[in-house]
Amino acid sequence: MISHSAFLARLAQPADTRIILLVVDGIGGLKTVDQPQTALELASTPHLDELAAKSALGRLLPIAHGVTPGSGPGHLSLFGYDPRTPEADIGRGVLEGLGLGIHLSPHDLAARGNFATAGADGNLTDRRAGRISSAECQRLCVLLQRAVGAFEEIDVEITAGEGHRFVLVLRANGLSAEVADTDPQEIGVPPLPPRATDPMTPQAEQTVEHLCRIIALLEASIQAEAQANRVLLRGFSKLPHLPQMGDLYKIRAAAFAGYPLYRGVAKACGMAVVPCGKKIEDLAPAVREDWNNFDFFFIHVKQTDMAGEDGDLEAKAEAIEAVDRILPDLLALQPDVIAITGDHSTPAPMLAHSWHPVPLLLNSKRCFVDSCRTFTEESAVVGHLGTIEAWKLMGLLLANAGRLAKFGA
Amino acid sequence: MISHSAFLARLAQPADTRIILLVVDGIGGLKTVDQPQTALELASTPHLDELAAKSALGRLLPIAHGVTPGSGPGHLSLFGYDPRTPEADIGRGVLEGLGLGIHLSPHDLAARGNFATAGADGNLTDRRAGRISSAECQRLCVLLQRAVGAFEEIDVEITAGEGHRFVLVLRANGLSAEVADTDPQEIGVPPLPPRATDPMTPQAEQTVEHLCRIIALLEASIQAEAQANRVLLRGFSKLPHLPQMGDLYKIRAAAFAGYPLYRGVAKACGMAVVPCGKKIEDLAPAVREDWNNFDFFFIHVKQTDMAGEDGDLEAKAEAIEAVDRILPDLLALQPDVIAITGDHSTPAPMLAHSWHPVPLLLNSKRCFVDSCRTFTEESAVVGHLGTIEAWKLMGLLLANAGRLAKFGA
Repeated sequence: MISHSAFLARLAQPADTRIILLVVDGIGGLKTVDQPQTALELASTPHLDELAAKSALGRLLPIAHGVTPGSGPGHLSLFGYDPRTPEADIGRGVLEGLGLGIHLSPHDLAARGNFATAGADGNLTDRRAGRISSAECQRLCVLLQRAVGAFEEIDVEITAGEGHRFVLVLRANGLSAEVADTDPQEIGVPPLPPRATDPMTPQAEQTVEHLCRIIALLEASIQAEAQANRVLLRGFSKLPHLPQMGDLYKIRAAAFAGYPLYRGVAKACGMAVVPCGKKIEDLAPAVREDWNNFDFFFIHVKQTDMAGEDGDLEAKAEAIEAVDRILPDLLALQPDVIAITGDHSTPAPMLAHSWHPVPLLLNSKRCFVDSCRTFTEESAVVGHLGTIEAWKLMGLLLANAGRLAKFGA
Repeated sequence: MISHSAFLARLAQPADTRIILLVVDGIGGLKTVDQPQTALELASTPHLDELAAKSALGRLLPIAHGVTPGSGPGHLSLFGYDPRTPEADIGRGVLEGLGLGIHLSPHDLAARGNFATAGADGNLTDRRAGRISSAECQRLCVLLQRAVGAFEEIDVEITAGEGHRFVLVLRANGLSAEVADTDPQEIGVPPLPPRATDPMTPQAEQTVEHLCRIIALLEASIQAEAQANRVLLRGFSKLPHLPQMGDLYKIRAAAFAGYPLYRGVAKACGMAVVPCGKKIEDLAPAVREDWNNFDFFFIHVKQTDMAGEDGDLEAKAEAIEAVDRILPDLLALQPDVIAITGDHSTPAPMLAHSWHPVPLLLNSKRCFVDSCRTFTEESAVVGHLGTIEAWKLMGLLLANAGRLAKFGA
């Protein structure tokens, strides 16, 4: 059986049309007995409502019923890849590395790092080292880099990220990604030693040996620090061989995302990553500037997800209102297709990502203008697009943009 | 591609939460021009309605659109197995045997037996021998067992079931389940001789030879009976290798079912089978007694299906009302998740199982409280859960119980 993306690729054809995919991260919410309104219902969204009345609504299932996606699989699915397939298995280390703009070759091994605090007994007291500032992280990463600068045959590279986060990249042939996280995911215990997830692979054992010595060097260099005196590593991974979106769909795709992870996923899928601020108001001007350079515009809004994870319904509604305010600027560009959805739900009552289907709005000259008049979780249930797996959205975007040929005579 | 249950198994994690799956057998009904109300609509169900107003509704498709399930596949699907896969192909003989508490080894061959009546010409006049009593069946099975007690190298075991039903088990190595039913499914013709469904298998031919002689011995022992003078065999099968629910989902699962078949399916899936009466009122006390011993409680109500098969709309509505009456006792246990649905529809106007989607109610702290205020076939159409294949329900149950880890970073 041919994969869905390969099937679409057979039908994809160029056209002079533009598609906007506006991903409002974690947009879907939850009604409970205690919280009888979702953020989408609470927010005042005149422009979204006006667009909904001219559009087709529906819902996206990020992965499968009951399955809560991380941000990586959630976005891969929106870009047309079924994240349950090995082809689309992309690790956290690689995602973070790509997001920071690190060049990765296929044999490089990347891991996401956290600075952490341990007491005199070696047990962790804070897995995020008091959430140190990015400037402090920069300073510490210089110490780490110096400590492993001359590490034998392996090129070790440390790159500071946001707050307490950094990325570790090992460059050498024969490295294995079959290494378990050293982050124990709890405090009161020491960091885990690196160990191979598949002890039968000599490459994994060898990689673990390297990592043991590298971690010892890294931690020796920061042992006198009050807060950031340990490192935790997770998501050991190598670049997957994702078919690139340009090749698959005959589009020039670009990502407009202020946060590293989403830039990383987009880059792994073959999108151009356009420099872009973190504020919601930054997005439309950035897209306008590049309107003639691309066909497919992935625009990422992070604030909704952050508010949902904080359990802050009001802040989530405010972020949705901010999205509503930039909508006229996006529509003024006259995209042939605009879809508004999320990579998953982040209901405020759950303070976390969830598995609940995500509302979807799709507008084009060819969409079915259904009777939904507002863009909410519940109106979307009866929308014309129905409830579909998120990785099926790409076919609808291309079709509405006149970019899919007829199948068969 | 990894199977759905294997995919869920990768994410399943233990939690101190309890799930009730209340299967109201055949609950779904049909509206026709002549019968404009379903049993769910006719029944007075104050507790179900109250729960519906706090829950998410939706519908389950037992197998596939248009496909009417037997009780075996219908339940396997609810337990998370796609019944179209060879892995979940479980025969009627095995189901009946397990339901009667017969121990089956992987090489044993089981068949479901009916006592039947044939006239002097050898043609069947009643495929159920006048629906003889269970006591009469017991008496006859003693005769059968005596007749085959010393049958060569094969251990032949007869176990009486309900009414005219019994189970035949052959214990030996090298037996084949590739044997067709001897029940012709019509009267006025003789029983069919056993024959191999795959004539190329020497094991099947050998098994058929054994069966010919065994059936001759069995029927000789009852030839003087007025009613039960023949035996009809169907569903020749061996134990399938089903992945067990405890291993897949990290749950301790138990079945509360008064009827053999449902106990049998549950046991084949790895559930503990708790002794339990047949009355609807028996169920809640049995569950309460074991509330601390399990995480997953499959509760089976048979009466709705029986009423549907009798074409008795009133009786079906009464059975639903009896379910409604036990609901407060189940809710008093404070399950973290309760789902109410059926393994298929049994519309009274059809007097049989059907393919129509089955209404589903799911309640938990994390369910989306949609606008459905009653639990009926039609309100469920616009419920937040949508219409999904029944084997996808398990993911929702686990997710709502906090028993599925996030997929990917």
